[in-house]
Amino acid sequence: MRPSQRQPDQLRPVRLTRGFTCHAEGSVLVEFGATRVLCTASVEDSVPAFLRGKGQGWLTAEYGMLPRATHTRSAREAAKGKQSGRTQEIQRLIGRSLRAVVDLAALGERQIVIDCDVLQADGGTRTAAITGACVAVHDALVGLVAAGKLARNPMREFVAAVSVGIHDGVPVLDLDYAEDSACDTDMNVVMTEGGGLIEVQGTAEGAAFSRAELDALLDLAELGGRHLFELQRAAVHGG
Amino acid sequence: MRPSQRQPDQLRPVRLTRGFTCHAEGSVLVEFGATRVLCTASVEDSVPAFLRGKGQGWLTAEYGMLPRATHTRSAREAAKGKQSGRTQEIQRLIGRSLRAVVDLAALGERQIVIDCDVLQADGGTRTAAITGACVAVHDALVGLVAAGKLARNPMREFVAAVSVGIHDGVPVLDLDYAEDSACDTDMNVVMTEGGGLIEVQGTAEGAAFSRAELDALLDLAELGGRHLFELQRAAVHGG
Amino acid sequence: MRPSQRQPDQLRPVRLTRGFTCHAEGSVLVEFGATRVLCTASVEDSVPAFLRGKGQGWLTAEYGMLPRATHTRSAREAAKGKQSGRTQEIQRLIGRSLRAVVDLAALGERQIVIDCDVLQADGGTRTAAITGACVAVHDALVGLVAAGKLARNPMREFVAAVSVGIHDGVPVLDLDYAEDSACDTDMNVVMTEGGGLIEVQGTAEGAAFSRAELDALLDLAELGGRHLFELQRAAVHGG
Amino acid sequence: MRPSQRQPDQLRPVRLTRGFTCHAEGSVLVEFGATRVLCTASVEDSVPAFLRGKGQGWLTAEYGMLPRATHTRSAREAAKGKQSGRTQEIQRLIGRSLRAVVDLAALGERQIVIDCDVLQADGGTRTAAITGACVAVHDALVGLVAAGKLARNPMREFVAAVSVGIHDGVPVLDLDYAEDSACDTDMNVVMTEGGGLIEVQGTAEGAAFSRAELDALLDLAELGGRHLFELQRAAVHGG
Amino acid sequence: MRPSQRQPDQLRPVRLTRGFTCHAEGSVLVEFGATRVLCTASVEDSVPAFLRGKGQGWLTAEYGMLPRATHTRSAREAAKGKQSGRTQEIQRLIGRSLRAVVDLAALGERQIVIDCDVLQADGGTRTAAITGACVAVHDALVGLVAAGKLARNPMREFVAAVSVGIHDGVPVLDLDYAEDSACDTDMNVVMTEGGGLIEVQGTAEGAAFSRAELDALLDLAELGGRHLFELQRAAVHGG
Amino acid sequence: MRPSQRQPDQLRPVRLTRGFTCHAEGSVLVEFGATRVLCTASVEDSVPAFLRGKGQGWLTAEYGMLPRATHTRSAREAAKGKQSGRTQEIQRLIGRSLRAVVDLAALGERQIVIDCDVLQADGGTRTAAITGACVAVHDALVGLVAAGKLARNPMREFVAAVSVGIHDGVPVLDLDYAEDSACDTDMNVVMTEGGGLIEVQGTAEGAAFSRAELDALLDLAELGGRHLFELQRAAVHGG
Repeated sequence: MRPSQRQPDQLRPVRLTRGFTCHAEGSVLVEFGATRVLCTASVEDSVPAFLRGKGQGWLTAEYGMLPRATHTRSAREAAKGKQSGRTQEIQRLIGRSLRAVVDLAALGERQIVIDCDVLQADGGTRTAAITGACVAVHDALVGLVAAGKLARNPMREFVAAVSVGIHDGVPVLDLDYAEDSACDTDMNVVMTEGGGLIEVQGTAEGAAFSRAELDALLDLAELGGRHLFELQRAAVHGG
Repeated sequence: MRPSQRQPDQLRPVRLTRGFTCHAEGSVLVEFGATRVLCTASVEDSVPAFLRGKGQGWLTAEYGMLPRATHTRSAREAAKGKQSGRTQEIQRLIGRSLRAVVDLAALGERQIVIDCDVLQADGGTRTAAITGACVAVHDALVGLVAAGKLARNPMREFVAAVSVGIHDGVPVLDLDYAEDSACDTDMNVVMTEGGGLIEVQGTAEGAAFSRAELDALLDLAELGGRHLFELQRAAVHGG
Repeated sequence: MRPSQRQPDQLRPVRLTRGFTCHAEGSVLVEFGATRVLCTASVEDSVPAFLRGKGQGWLTAEYGMLPRATHTRSAREAAKGKQSGRTQEIQRLIGRSLRAVVDLAALGERQIVIDCDVLQADGGTRTAAITGACVAVHDALVGLVAAGKLARNPMREFVAAVSVGIHDGVPVLDLDYAEDSACDTDMNVVMTEGGGLIEVQGTAEGAAFSRAELDALLDLAELGGRHLFELQRAAVHGG
Repeated sequence: MRPSQRQPDQLRPVRLTRGFTCHAEGSVLVEFGATRVLCTASVEDSVPAFLRGKGQGWLTAEYGMLPRATHTRSAREAAKGKQSGRTQEIQRLIGRSLRAVVDLAALGERQIVIDCDVLQADGGTRTAAITGACVAVHDALVGLVAAGKLARNPMREFVAAVSVGIHDGVPVLDLDYAEDSACDTDMNVVMTEGGGLIEVQGTAEGAAFSRAELDALLDLAELGGRHLFELQRAAVHGG
Repeated sequence: MRPSQRQPDQLRPVRLTRGFTCHAEGSVLVEFGATRVLCTASVEDSVPAFLRGKGQGWLTAEYGMLPRATHTRSAREAAKGKQSGRTQEIQRLIGRSLRAVVDLAALGERQIVIDCDVLQADGGTRTAAITGACVAVHDALVGLVAAGKLARNPMREFVAAVSVGIHDGVPVLDLDYAEDSACDTDMNVVMTEGGGLIEVQGTAEGAAFSRAELDALLDLAELGGRHLFELQRAAVHGG
Repeated sequence: MRPSQRQPDQLRPVRLTRGFTCHAEGSVLVEFGATRVLCTASVEDSVPAFLRGKGQGWLTAEYGMLPRATHTRSAREAAKGKQSGRTQEIQRLIGRSLRAVVDLAALGERQIVIDCDVLQADGGTRTAAITGACVAVHDALVGLVAAGKLARNPMREFVAAVSVGIHDGVPVLDLDYAEDSACDTDMNVVMTEGGGLIEVQGTAEGAAFSRAELDALLDLAELGGRHLFELQRAAVHGG
């Protein structure tokens, strides 16, 4: 049995609250159970130096965790003076995932900066962040269209992410912290609405995993993805 | 007339939401109008090196602002690799303010770490942070008493803070961002429930200010303080 | 009785030595008793990026303390790789204080950089620094007028600063280190020759202070300020 | 056709040179075609703080690239004062991969530090590094057994890694730089001799990839892995 | 007797391997016995800011040591976030030494960046680095001439360096690590083919040294230099 | 003729002012003409980690330059967040020079920290610093003897330093800034009272220099050294 009493293929309750803060062009609070991440998308009228004058846009992401988002307080990265390797891995993943679904040429010479800040952590912060950031970026792009700055929304399709893992020998969907800590294999899967895979990152925490286990995990992830895309669409249409 | 249509001596709507996040021993979302700051208090069972073995506790604070808490995105301090002078000034002020109302000897060899993170900024983040942090620390201390780790709550009285300033020649209470940017003189006052002053920080942004103006500002601040203490007491008793 | 045998309203011997070093456009050694701060003003022909092309000047300050300016050696900030929060607070205060008395538009697109380096510390280094920096900036500006680069001196009036505090229950002027360490309340006041207040920063070190105590301290500070302005004028005229 | 004229399922010439430098307990130069990485394993008699007194060992890795290992010179990380996100991702991956095949309890309270330094880069530096580091760690552990410090070699099986990708629509094995830059999908697979998977990291560089493509890539990677394990065994036995 | 059984005036076997790596415009592996340093010269089409528009070139150097180049592992400078004072001294010395033999005006507005990375250390890494870097820079300059970018090679003469020291009372040439650690006086001498001195850096490790000892050491260094110049010429002609 | 009208073998006026600041155990203002360096020696009751428990002492040095010690303002190292390579070279040289004349075993488990801060620069700051630091350390050691903490002064002899160079083809002693900037060869020589050499650092700024020139420079340096030792002795006896 899962610690949360969920079925193996059951997501935690997922909520997407748009307009959570007022200044950003897109601002979404995403919740996967007790995991809560504030995702904002900021539109900037310039691009990084390596793209200047190339007529295309860019999209990048930063990730942070409030010091007491976790069970015990973790040191503030701004005070330590550097971002951990984990933070950098996650923010690079978020940026790649969103760039994969946005037509950067159609965006023009602008940059979207995504900030994903974890207010409360209970496992799966990176997958929640990608799922929420997608809606925040969508809202920012809709705003550019509404303002007449873009002819059409350059986001081709939605992107969402979910974690899967093998817990007590059973493949399970959307790990919370209790499961994540006790898991043998842990995989994050980033998918598109159209059924494509953007990133597959599977890691053996203890023993190696087999091809058969990998397949079972991918099946679960696709199932979870379908549910997340429905929630993203509902959030956007109900907004 | 004030940009917000408020009377000169009128606070913005102030809200204190306890238990905003689940892991911290004290967790309060404080809102002064559109300014929203998450204040958490974490209890740690050790003290900084300079206090080890002296039989007393310590209380310190850190402050941060999410990159898109502001009108235009500001760079993430963790990514820049250092905290700005402004950030350091504010976190030192929060720490001093709370230490002034807690009996550190009665706290024993423990440390309370306060984190004040601005989710949305509209002026007065440091005064909101102090006002909210007081309740978060209170809750953490009540928890220590409940757990039998302390015989009594070592917080002697509440502390609160408010900004005042001279806007268009008129002394006004609790500046929002629009007023703050246009202000000649700006003052932050940290007060105790018992009517004492903890910190008075007045700054002429343009022309110097007079003793008479200083007096008018302090009167307003005391008025605001009385209202804030009522709200803190209501929050704690209604919690 | 004060540790230094001074009357409550008595400044330490204050000396302002102009031309203490030879390269800077303004160079003043300021002494408040045993506190000795070297203040230099450097004229640069460019302004920070945020002011470029706006036709106005800027004035900024940096502060440092030699490692053995203090009773026990403190670590060199250049070796530690960062400036402390205290250093940043002080240099921001010095910059704001001087900007308040200089007409930045009349300065033209130039920057004055003030460096205040403490050679020997005995309390009140920030107030000594402001008082000395005022004369150093004055000298640099007089030099620009003499060189025909400015039509008139853009400093509107002198600025000076002094600390006051409540020591053993008695309000006293110009705290030395012995008093500062033992003080209940400590306040730094930055004033202009014309009687205006630029900054008032009062801090309760232990118990809170009352409005009456605040008033007594401000009276003392104004008294001290009048004396400092006389000394600044004498230094400039006797130079 | 591949730029290198190789068959889709053909590795580049792989060489493992043991004892490449003389001081390290294990020192291997690994070459995957023109990619050359020096992997050293250093034995230290202490473990990181979080493991002290737990009776188990640790294994960690660091990765670097000489500034002119690449086509155009890249800035030296030591001079920039920080390691890039890419460097940190790679060194975390190397560490995890090797920890997966070493019995840390059997290692005792010692640490193996792996250094992988790229002398010349032509794609696939991280997979070459893992493959080479495995032999270097093996040699260091054999040395501990020979010295009587360990009863048996705590490495359970070999670990190796290879990249695969979809180039011009065709799944290919072991990408060189020319292919890597032009690739739609890129995957790094870390495997054990026993056929288990340790890490699977697939990334869509442009369009998303399908489950069928993922399967084809994993098949290729397993094929490459079998060849790499033969080379590792030959290197160790021929040494 | 020397630990290495060499005569007092005998160099270790010196090897210069050109084209050791493939991307750099000049790439030389230099070996002084067991000391092995990879020296690359990279040509860049811009100069540092302080030289822009002055119609002359520049040449600079960076130095590093792989963590396990030494007997016991030393911390990676990129991970520590800064280069040691020793590293900076050495790279400044290498840059000055090479600039002394290159006509910077004839180089045009380009920069040569030298990287000297120690793969294996056994004393004398800085002198090996200078000796090898000279050949790498030579090769890069010959390449510019061959590409028609320069009319003639702006290197005026070769530069080489060797260490000398007083070991057990005897002046000896080209110290290895065993001698270097036990040496009373240690001197690095940088010389030109034409017999001139570029740098003389003598240091008493224990007792002071006399003028007579200094003279004996300089004689030995000149002898060593003549041999090194022969080897450089042979390497370049045989390449 | 020298810019300063001095004879080739003439030092600038040298002054050593003891007790320049009040807190340090040794505090000397050293002036070589317009070059003014404040040298303090601080006694600490512990040694660096690598010497703990070995029953011997240590002596280390730090060097800094006030931002406006120079003709044009140089950036403050504490604000830049790191010390330059030049600063580190100089402070390492000062430390080595003083350690060469102090019996570290006789010092016991204590550390002397020397701080050399340049108040005004006109060439030769490092040689002035060594010469002044010697007196500051002497005073600190005399204090330890006077306090009964040491049986005898562990300084074996004085150490002093002077620069020499070839200016307009003429070997000259004690270069000021005007000469230093125009110099072909520049050498710093650190000597002991007993006539020994501690450090010889000669650098060709343009053309290489010959053995004959080196000899002439060393002769001048020895002459200058004899004068400096007289001044040090006079300072100490007259104190």
